[in-house]
Amino acid sequence: MDWENVFASRSSRMKASEIRELLKLLDQPDIISFAGGIPDPALFPTEEFQQAFTNTLSGEKQTAALQYSVSEGYVPLRQWIAGQMEKLGIHCSIDNILITSGSQQALDYLGKLLLSPNDTALVTWPTYMGALGAFNAYEPVYDRLMANGNRSAAEYRDTAADNNSRVKFAYVSVDFANPTGETLDRPGRERLLDLAQDLDMPVIEDAAYQSLRYDGEAIPPILALDIERNGHIDKTRTLYCGSFSKTLAPGLRVGWVCAAQPVISKLVLMKQAADLHSSTINQIAIHEVASKGFDKQVAKISVAYSARRDCMLSALEVHMPEGVSWTKPEGGMFVWLTLPQGWDGADLLARSIETQRVAFVPGHAFYADGSNRNTMRLSFSQANEETINEGIRRLGMLLKSV
Amino acid sequence: MDWENVFASRSSRMKASEIRELLKLLDQPDIISFAGGIPDPALFPTEEFQQAFTNTLSGEKQTAALQYSVSEGYVPLRQWIAGQMEKLGIHCSIDNILITSGSQQALDYLGKLLLSPNDTALVTWPTYMGALGAFNAYEPVYDRLMANGNRSAAEYRDTAADNNSRVKFAYVSVDFANPTGETLDRPGRERLLDLAQDLDMPVIEDAAYQSLRYDGEAIPPILALDIERNGHIDKTRTLYCGSFSKTLAPGLRVGWVCAAQPVISKLVLMKQAADLHSSTINQIAIHEVASKGFDKQVAKISVAYSARRDCMLSALEVHMPEGVSWTKPEGGMFVWLTLPQGWDGADLLARSIETQRVAFVPGHAFYADGSNRNTMRLSFSQANEETINEGIRRLGMLLKSV
Repeated sequence: MDWENVFASRSSRMKASEIRELLKLLDQPDIISFAGGIPDPALFPTEEFQQAFTNTLSGEKQTAALQYSVSEGYVPLRQWIAGQMEKLGIHCSIDNILITSGSQQALDYLGKLLLSPNDTALVTWPTYMGALGAFNAYEPVYDRLMANGNRSAAEYRDTAADNNSRVKFAYVSVDFANPTGETLDRPGRERLLDLAQDLDMPVIEDAAYQSLRYDGEAIPPILALDIERNGHIDKTRTLYCGSFSKTLAPGLRVGWVCAAQPVISKLVLMKQAADLHSSTINQIAIHEVASKGFDKQVAKISVAYSARRDCMLSALEVHMPEGVSWTKPEGGMFVWLTLPQGWDGADLLARSIETQRVAFVPGHAFYADGSNRNTMRLSFSQANEETINEGIRRLGMLLKSV
Repeated sequence: MDWENVFASRSSRMKASEIRELLKLLDQPDIISFAGGIPDPALFPTEEFQQAFTNTLSGEKQTAALQYSVSEGYVPLRQWIAGQMEKLGIHCSIDNILITSGSQQALDYLGKLLLSPNDTALVTWPTYMGALGAFNAYEPVYDRLMANGNRSAAEYRDTAADNNSRVKFAYVSVDFANPTGETLDRPGRERLLDLAQDLDMPVIEDAAYQSLRYDGEAIPPILALDIERNGHIDKTRTLYCGSFSKTLAPGLRVGWVCAAQPVISKLVLMKQAADLHSSTINQIAIHEVASKGFDKQVAKISVAYSARRDCMLSALEVHMPEGVSWTKPEGGMFVWLTLPQGWDGADLLARSIETQRVAFVPGHAFYADGSNRNTMRLSFSQANEETINEGIRRLGMLLKSV
C-alpha cells in the first residue's frame, strides 16, 4: 500500500523530532545529561504508591478499580483537585474538572476542540515543544505571543487576516515554564486576559510546574484572575491544565483540565469517544497518595530540586564565558541559556557529546519557526550536585573554546 | 464567552448519546440490565493483579513503573503480544505493535491518521457505536459496508464520488461483534480483502472480542489472511486492534494496534504528541498477569459467559413471540434481536423500564444513519442465569403485549 496516499493531510504535520531522535542515542552511562527534563525517580513516593495500590486492590474498591469508569474521572479525585484549585483562588466544582491522561492529553484535547486547519494559535517564542506537537495534529498556523504586551490585539488580528486565518487561542506555560524556567508576572497575566478579551479568545494556561516553586511569591493562576474579573468560573475563558507528573509520578498518566462547565462538557464527550476514560486504578491510587501527603511530597522534591537549581546557577556563574546569559528560575526544572548571536545549539550539542560528554536540548526546537538557534535548555532535575558542577564546568570549557 | 463560536467545526459532531444518557438513569438495583455490555467484575483476575502491582512496586522495576516511558509501549508486553499474534497466524515483530490506552484509543488514532473531513468510512449496518463516536471527530461520511459482498467496488467508489468524497477505509468488528454477536466467516474476510485491494484502502479489524470464542472453529484474523496473500505484515493493509479489556480488565486501559511498520511509526508519533504514552505501571502489570495466566483467565470467563449465553438463547426460545428473531453468537457478550417492522426499540425501552424493569440498548444507535429502529442489543455478560431467565421472561411479556 502507498500509505502516504491514504493518510489524512494532518499526518504530514506529525514528524519525528530530530531532537528526540538524537537524545535517544544519548542514553549512555558516561554522559552527563541536562537534556531530559523529567522527574528524578529517586524522589517518587514509591512506598506511598505501593500502599495505595495494595489498599485499592484489597479493599472495597478492588473490582471497581479494574472496571470501566466514567469519562469525567474518579469523583473523589475531582473533589480533591477542586480543593486544591480553591487554595489557588479558583473556586470551582467537580463539574469544572475533567481527568485526562496527563496534561499532554489535555493539550491534545484542547487543540482538537478549538483548532480547525489554518486557525492561528498564539504561542510564546520559545514555548513547550510538546504543545506544538499536540496542536500540530490540528493543522494550525502559529503567531508569536508577546507576553510583555508589545503587540496589540489589532496586530494579532491583522496578521491572522493576512493568512486568511483567525486567532483561536493563546497558549502559555505560566510558572517556571518549560523551556525557559521563567514565570509570567501578575501584570503580564492581566495583560494577557485583556488581550484575550479584545480578541474574544480562550487562554490555555499550562500549569504543569505550578506546585514546584522554590522561592519568591506565588502568583495567582490566570484562571483565578479571570474568575476575579467575571465572578464565576463558568463565565471565564481560561482553560487550566494541571498535572501530577511533576509532583507525584508521571508513569500513571494523570492530569486534569479545570475550566468553564460548557468546555468541560464538550471535553467529556471528546474523551468518551477517544479513549472512554483514564485508567480507573491509577486515578484511585493518585487520589490516595495525594490526599494523604501531597504537600509533604511537594516539600520533599522542592528541597532537592531547589538545591540543584542553586548549584547549577552557581556553576554557571563560575564557568560560563562572557556573552552567555541565562534565566534565574524560581522553581521548576529548567534553566535557559542564550548564547552569542550566530552560535548554534544543535552544532554545539554534537560537539559537546563528542568532546565533553554533556547533553542538553538545543533551543530552536522550542520555537514554532525553528529560529533562535543560539539557545539551549538545561534541566537540573535529575543530576546530583557533584554531577551538575562537573557538567557545567565541561560545558563552560566547550563554550569558551567556540 | 460564546464557546460555540470558538469551537472547531469537528466539535459539532461530538454529541451526547441519547442512549448513554438514558442508561445513566437506569443504575437502579431493581432493574434487570442487559444494557451494559461490560465484563462481569466478579470474573476479574483481582488476586493476580494484586500480586502484579505489588511485585512491580517492590521489585527492580519499581521506579521505572512510575516514570515516563516510550510512546511505543513496554517492550516485554509488546513481545508477549507478538507471541499471541503468532498463534493467530500473524507473524510480526514488536515494531508492528503499538500499545494504546484501550482499543478505543486505537480507533481514535486510526480515524485521526486516515480521515480528512468528508472522507468516506465504510461501516457495517449496524456497527460498534464507539467506532462511530471515535471517527466522528474527524468528520467523515459513512457508507454501508455489505460484508456479504452484495456491493461492488465500483458502487462504493461511485457513491463516494457522488459526495465529492473518497473511500478511506472499511471498519469491521470480526468476531462476535458488538452489537450483533455475529462473526464474519472466512469467505467474508477474503471478500473484504478483495474489496480493499480493489479500492486500495486499509481495513480496520476490530478484534476486541477475539479471545471470547465459546464454540465453533476459530477463523483466522483478516490480518493473518492478508499476510498469507502478501507474504509479510509490512506489505499488508489490515490494521488490527486488540484489547485486554474483555479478557483481563478494562480499568487499566491497555490495548494495541498490530499493523505494517509504516503505520505503526506514524501512530507512535501521533501518540507521543497526544498523550506521550499509556500508563507505564499498567502495562507492566498487564504483562505480568497476561504472561502468567492469560489462557487460564480466558478459559475461566469463557465457561461463565458461555453458560449465560446458552441460558439467554434458551430463554429467548421459550419467551419470545412470533416475529422476533435473534442471532446465535459463538462467543462475545451480545445477542441481537430483530423485531417486526414498525416496532421501535427506543419506545420499547421506555415501556420496558416502566412496566418490566428490564433494560437493553435500542438498536438504532448502532446504525450510522439511525435506521432500523426495530432492533435491540442484549448483553449476557453481567447477569446470572436466574436473572437472565427472569429478565427474558419479562421482556417476552412486554413484546407479546405490543
